Amino acid sequence: MARRTRVLRLATAGPSDTAPLAAAIDKGEVDPATIVAIVGKTEGNGCVNDFTRGYATLALKLLLGDRRVAIVMSGGTEGGLSPHLLVFCREEAQGVANGKRLAIGTGFTRDFKPEEIGRQAQINETAAAVASAMKEAGIASAADVHFVQIKCPLLTKERIEEAARRGTRTATDDTYHSMALSRGASALGVALALGEIKAASEAAVCKDWSLHSSVASTSAGVELLRNEIVVLGNAEGWAGDLLIGHDVMKDAIDADAPRRVRTQLGGEVVAVLAKAEAAPSGEIRGRRHTMLDDSDIHSTRHARALVGGVLAGVIGDTMLYVSGGAEHQGPAGGGPVAIIAKV
Amino acid sequence: MARRTRVLRLATAGPSDTAPLAAAIDKGEVDPATIVAIVGKTEGNGCVNDFTRGYATLALKLLLGDRRVAIVMSGGTEGGLSPHLLVFCREEAQGVANGKRLAIGTGFTRDFKPEEIGRQAQINETAAAVASAMKEAGIASAADVHFVQIKCPLLTKERIEEAARRGTRTATDDTYHSMALSRGASALGVALALGEIKAASEAAVCKDWSLHSSVASTSAGVELLRNEIVVLGNAEGWAGDLLIGHDVMKDAIDADAPRRVRTQLGGEVVAVLAKAEAAPSGEIRGRRHTMLDDSDIHSTRHARALVGGVLAGVIGDTMLYVSGGAEHQGPAGGGPVAIIAKV
Amino acid sequence: MARRTRVLRLATAGPSDTAPLAAAIDKGEVDPATIVAIVGKTEGNGCVNDFTRGYATLALKLLLGDRRVAIVMSGGTEGGLSPHLLVFCREEAQGVANGKRLAIGTGFTRDFKPEEIGRQAQINETAAAVASAMKEAGIASAADVHFVQIKCPLLTKERIEEAARRGTRTATDDTYHSMALSRGASALGVALALGEIKAASEAAVCKDWSLHSSVASTSAGVELLRNEIVVLGNAEGWAGDLLIGHDVMKDAIDADAPRRVRTQLGGEVVAVLAKAEAAPSGEIRGRRHTMLDDSDIHSTRHARALVGGVLAGVIGDTMLYVSGGAEHQGPAGGGPVAIIAKV
Amino acid sequence: MARRTRVLRLATAGPSDTAPLAAAIDKGEVDPATIVAIVGKTEGNGCVNDFTRGYATLALKLLLGDRRVAIVMSGGTEGGLSPHLLVFCREEAQGVANGKRLAIGTGFTRDFKPEEIGRQAQINETAAAVASAMKEAGIASAADVHFVQIKCPLLTKERIEEAARRGTRTATDDTYHSMALSRGASALGVALALGEIKAASEAAVCKDWSLHSSVASTSAGVELLRNEIVVLGNAEGWAGDLLIGHDVMKDAIDADAPRRVRTQLGGEVVAVLAKAEAAPSGEIRGRRHTMLDDSDIHSTRHARALVGGVLAGVIGDTMLYVSGGAEHQGPAGGGPVAIIAKV
Repeated sequence: MARRTRVLRLATAGPSDTAPLAAAIDKGEVDPATIVAIVGKTEGNGCVNDFTRGYATLALKLLLGDRRVAIVMSGGTEGGLSPHLLVFCREEAQGVANGKRLAIGTGFTRDFKPEEIGRQAQINETAAAVASAMKEAGIASAADVHFVQIKCPLLTKERIEEAARRGTRTATDDTYHSMALSRGASALGVALALGEIKAASEAAVCKDWSLHSSVASTSAGVELLRNEIVVLGNAEGWAGDLLIGHDVMKDAIDADAPRRVRTQLGGEVVAVLAKAEAAPSGEIRGRRHTMLDDSDIHSTRHARALVGGVLAGVIGDTMLYVSGGAEHQGPAGGGPVAIIAKV
Repeated sequence: MARRTRVLRLATAGPSDTAPLAAAIDKGEVDPATIVAIVGKTEGNGCVNDFTRGYATLALKLLLGDRRVAIVMSGGTEGGLSPHLLVFCREEAQGVANGKRLAIGTGFTRDFKPEEIGRQAQINETAAAVASAMKEAGIASAADVHFVQIKCPLLTKERIEEAARRGTRTATDDTYHSMALSRGASALGVALALGEIKAASEAAVCKDWSLHSSVASTSAGVELLRNEIVVLGNAEGWAGDLLIGHDVMKDAIDADAPRRVRTQLGGEVVAVLAKAEAAPSGEIRGRRHTMLDDSDIHSTRHARALVGGVLAGVIGDTMLYVSGGAEHQGPAGGGPVAIIAKV
Repeated sequence: MARRTRVLRLATAGPSDTAPLAAAIDKGEVDPATIVAIVGKTEGNGCVNDFTRGYATLALKLLLGDRRVAIVMSGGTEGGLSPHLLVFCREEAQGVANGKRLAIGTGFTRDFKPEEIGRQAQINETAAAVASAMKEAGIASAADVHFVQIKCPLLTKERIEEAARRGTRTATDDTYHSMALSRGASALGVALALGEIKAASEAAVCKDWSLHSSVASTSAGVELLRNEIVVLGNAEGWAGDLLIGHDVMKDAIDADAPRRVRTQLGGEVVAVLAKAEAAPSGEIRGRRHTMLDDSDIHSTRHARALVGGVLAGVIGDTMLYVSGGAEHQGPAGGGPVAIIAKV
Repeated sequence: MARRTRVLRLATAGPSDTAPLAAAIDKGEVDPATIVAIVGKTEGNGCVNDFTRGYATLALKLLLGDRRVAIVMSGGTEGGLSPHLLVFCREEAQGVANGKRLAIGTGFTRDFKPEEIGRQAQINETAAAVASAMKEAGIASAADVHFVQIKCPLLTKERIEEAARRGTRTATDDTYHSMALSRGASALGVALALGEIKAASEAAVCKDWSLHSSVASTSAGVELLRNEIVVLGNAEGWAGDLLIGHDVMKDAIDADAPRRVRTQLGGEVVAVLAKAEAAPSGEIRGRRHTMLDDSDIHSTRHARALVGGVLAGVIGDTMLYVSGGAEHQGPAGGGPVAIIAKV
């Protein structure tokens, strides 16, 4: 029996709106047992006190029950971005396609101890779990991996203190900074698994920006202790009419990158996933930006609005998954962009 | 003696940074006596309590002294927008170009009484001043006008009360709303002057969105009581190598509009001017946006970031004049975009 | 069998934190069947896009199941305000106190049609439901009512359109403004029920600020169509050691009002409930405030921070229920403050 | 000839409003030659991109010309705080008071090299300049010093790079953090000068919070390279009817501290100056606060609103100078409060 990846892109009316997914299930359009991952944009601020992510996750869990589904909610629909869910289903299919098709695999690391977050253990375990997810998806080559979405843990005051009581020190005492370290270490794990870099030492995390993955998209959350990984790529042996491609935006306004992916894939766009960040240099192509000096609006919010505008101009749609905080995910100030299309 | 319009696009390091303009004057690159208008983006919030506009204007007046220069500062460099000044000079030139070239004219209405703001008098006087500015610029046809930047007054508590003491009522008691009414009436005045609409009654101001100008860009400020008008177009009898063109973005992500202008003009982009607003329908091409429901970030800030991203993706530059609050300036949710290019 | 009102004040670690309440239930400290109302502060922005209220309400409903509990969540813990829940239980008791004690009653109107919100029907039905809640609580005199917390509906786009299809018009087309109208009409209903005003016509809603209640606290939410009312007062026939008192802050910095209540009640403070708003005049005791001109922070957020500071200075505690939007709840710029104390 | 300190507290209608001061000068109420310091609150965000401070300073310099006046503008009028200027004049007087009266002295360090900011040199030079300002004011004892307002430099990208070119390293590479280091080192300099601490090593700056001054109020700005110091105290040999007193708020809601100062001074309050900060512990008297987790509103804004409310409740006035960022200025989460009264 062959497999087929299905992707539903469902608009939401608010963080807790699961009605469109419930309706699809009720009508028999989706078998909830086939759902392996849900990736979504919610309309919070995407920063520390964004509770829309947890609210959406709780609402989805109430709908789906105890099933093991990787749920990654990214807050922040600045500019024109439109809140939505991407529901990934892995279904059984008759026969396979002639050629590669969209394949999905999931992987999970063991729980990390607080002192492992942002350090070598997180890099290495993530690399191993990415390799395992690729295998599950039947993706033969790293070149066929086009997006790796990871949800990773962060440090809380309690976790830092628990480590201290055991006589060990965590990578940072700053809970906010731990989000960046966890995202960064996870992205380096992806780069390592895919051979984008030869080695990744913990000393490079959030330090050596020359090391990065062109397909990693990582997001830190308080509600887990391990890394949960969704690998998207193209593979033989899958059915359906979906393909995925990706490219790297070299800076936030690099519209050529999504244009190249569209041209190469052809067909109808089903989903767009991208990372955004304010260029740490303070400039975009030599022009000063003010994102890092704005004490009213966090730079990640500016960056999502900007990249959302660039992508919407190319795609003609604002229902885009644009996520902020791109440590080691694409070059500094840029980031990966992936498109899933029906061909 | 012929005339030539020069445009300097000068990056600023902050609202009060006049050093680049001072340097250009000191080096003899610009004769301050030739400056007729300065249009700029400053890094405030672009809303009620944005003092960067006044700060920049004060700094420019200290540099330029008593010269009569139309100064229009627009706050808000959300997303990637880069703070800058566009300095328009009208110089004497030897001979004229073979064909039309960038022409500039300025016009000024009389001071308005408080009760005239947002009403028929403001519409009609603006129309007359636009016609006068066109004449000054030697622009023969409305089709050759590509951008009309207007600075217009607003109502303050004091002005409303002064009118009340004389027994008359202003168009609104809400000072914030008076900004929209003044911008709207001014834009209708432009549409009337250029024959874009046949008639404009005050009943239509901020009510009948089908009436709009495709070249108006209006901005309200507390520091004046009249409308100050800068008309940009192409005309015979001017020298130099600059041309201007425009189109209308039918919605905030209509990248085709600036692409068409670029293609038509060719050459090197010297300046980009556009208006942005959150679609009042709450949707962009059928997708929900959250700009109007966000109580943390004003919708005009979201809209500038979004349109700035769309334009930057097309132009490859973030030094763009994108201004918010587009009442009767392009269709609802869209707005005019003009490009000046060296051909 | 007599009755006794118990009040638990429980700190929360986030909007969905029901662990303290669950622990109290598990330990047998609280019988969930006795809970009649939960009033809480969550750490959202308290404005349109504050989803922490719904998140907290969902979490509480998951804990409490189908029980009929009036849940009122108020967003916004600006300044030093500390997120918490006030859980009101109505327990059976042996014997009654010697004198009046804290009494609680709840009331519910019928569902309102969209066109009734902010209008006469809402005023009158609210007045009737307040009277009914007083009776349920056995509060004999209006003078013994010290706080009336109401959750009331608002208009959505859909509700406005549904009314339009039936050929009727709602009180406003502006969903945000409908929150103020609903709060205002509900507060006038309280004032009417308690004899604070003789008559309340719908023409006075959000217009005639001289009409107001000194004990009403109303809050609009999207999740209901009726008014849910919690009346707190002192009455004979109740057991326990809790008393409630109230006073009216004549402006936002009127620290004498809470001081008077404390002095009068004595004992240990168990809960503080107050309303806050930015003085519409733009001034506090003749000094200009900037709350209404701040386009970065909503005035209701400033007002809660300010009143929270004034109260914390008097009470010595930041775990205070301070809620924004005080239409017809106390005088313009001021509001009611109630204290529950253990005597 | 004796001296007398005069204090004018002038409401402003906006950051550039110097009209009240100009009017006082025009009427002969103030001789501009006697102005030694102006301390003010402006209505910006008080954070990195607050340009209202520079705007106000420019407007004052345009009014006062080349006179050497210490100008300290503090942004942020959250909650109910009212924008205003405190103008300190040192006039000649006939005879002296019977007892101590308000005395003012100013001091200036040399310009600091970038690598000295936040380090030992800044601590030591500040201590010396405070001693010099005390001497100028004729204040005999440290116990008679009640407020030391300091404006200190910060690091910019350019200054950091200039130091790097000379082969030295600055105390931080983070320009925002340099503001805290400069404020902290300056406050330790005050504590050292006044004998509040015995020694202050640069290793303690923003590290050892047990070291602090109970009268220091420091504020970093980009527009200077040295520390400018205003010392306020009581001294023999001065005329007039003004006295100053101070106390330390042990936390943000410590209303007893300003109450004690009022009681001790008596008379009519002429000015109030205080520092505010969010308790780094995340708690106020054991209650969680959310200031440090709020990504929409900076914690310094919350803290000013809160402390402004506490003080307004005690003083009955919102025209208060409350400034944020209280490193080594009072205990963690608390800060100094000084009152000037007419006795």
